[in-house]
Amino acid sequence: MVELEALHKITYGLYIVSSGDRISGNGFISNTVFQVTSDPPRFAVVCNKDNYTSGIISKSGAFSVSVLDRDTPPEIFGQFGFKSGKDYDKLKGMEVIYGETGVPIILNECIAYLECRLIQTVDAGTHLIFIGEMIQSKVVNDSKEPISYAFYRKERKGVAPKNAPTFIDRAKLLEFSGKSIQKKYQCGACGYIYDEAAEKIRFSDLPPDWICPVCGSEKSDFFEITN
Amino acid sequence: MVELEALHKITYGLYIVSSGDRISGNGFISNTVFQVTSDPPRFAVVCNKDNYTSGIISKSGAFSVSVLDRDTPPEIFGQFGFKSGKDYDKLKGMEVIYGETGVPIILNECIAYLECRLIQTVDAGTHLIFIGEMIQSKVVNDSKEPISYAFYRKERKGVAPKNAPTFIDRAKLLEFSGKSIQKKYQCGACGYIYDEAAEKIRFSDLPPDWICPVCGSEKSDFFEITN
Repeated sequence: MVELEALHKITYGLYIVSSGDRISGNGFISNTVFQVTSDPPRFAVVCNKDNYTSGIISKSGAFSVSVLDRDTPPEIFGQFGFKSGKDYDKLKGMEVIYGETGVPIILNECIAYLECRLIQTVDAGTHLIFIGEMIQSKVVNDSKEPISYAFYRKERKGVAPKNAPTFIDRAKLLEFSGKSIQKKYQCGACGYIYDEAAEKIRFSDLPPDWICPVCGSEKSDFFEITN
Repeated sequence: MVELEALHKITYGLYIVSSGDRISGNGFISNTVFQVTSDPPRFAVVCNKDNYTSGIISKSGAFSVSVLDRDTPPEIFGQFGFKSGKDYDKLKGMEVIYGETGVPIILNECIAYLECRLIQTVDAGTHLIFIGEMIQSKVVNDSKEPISYAFYRKERKGVAPKNAPTFIDRAKLLEFSGKSIQKKYQCGACGYIYDEAAEKIRFSDLPPDWICPVCGSEKSDFFEITN
């Protein structure tokens, strides 16, 4: 028997994993960053094969990890978690420095960062596990707490992007209960479109204090649109 | 530059990872359990090659993960984190059920568990990454919070066992500062010996509310012993 709720008891942080260089850098929100050895210190990050950053990490041979604080605004999750760098320069307007390997390191809402040189790539199915040797680490802001994935889900009503390893496909549950899902809703503030077919959860089933993942507007700021 | 404190900003939970069977089962405290894919759900656990459980997972081809709650007593961390199953039956006296693969699943202080069939083993240096496909998951107690590694370190003054991926070798710092480390202290309650040479942090440098990792006795219950 599989109880999906049990999967939410596993603890994660939230990070921006970045790669590339000064000309074409990119980053994405990750909850799967973990240390795998202490001597030498090596870290693993998990990345969907379809993520634009996946190819960039493979090509650059390096990545950085920015640990996000609890006050990280929804715009950051919107920009780095729900948009693709294929279409859009995510680093534009961000506070960025470049590491020893040349990878971008994002400092907005960052309490600490690591820089790793890629040493191994593991194919885990839909996702790749990038293992990197840490060559640099720094505490940027010791006055703030790191945000946990549980805090993001519980206090901020955040959801996982479809490419996240922890994404739960609620369509399976909805199909089982015979509910149809096909409407779209647009954010009146920023234009973000919530697509039930893609998100696999009905807009009406989102909690009342759910907010736009891009700009943080309230659920009541959304309106139904026709295809 | 490497700032070790930055590594403490990465978020982890705490788990008992178990393997084996009814005749010879074993488990260890892990902070590195992560979901790596959602479809199908696969989980990674990181285990030191020297851990007794490492060989058992490889041989059994399966493992279970018990998510520990915040009230987990120090005895559990002592028994599963600081002792080896080579010398000692860790499961004796514990509340244990057996999964579909036959692996033990520990229910003490467990709020949820997963059972995984091993599908891939990755050599990451000193540690192995075991990747398993989840075949079972269950919430056991929804009224308690999962314990995070940060909570364990901060509120419970816990330290990482030497085999943990997150172990920080303080000897390097002590060597640098020219401090000698060579004393031993014994717990008056349970007989546990704190060896500065092995732990690589001086007993006097441990915080005043540090407790015996085996039985939870206070620091003042320890006495210096001669070799």
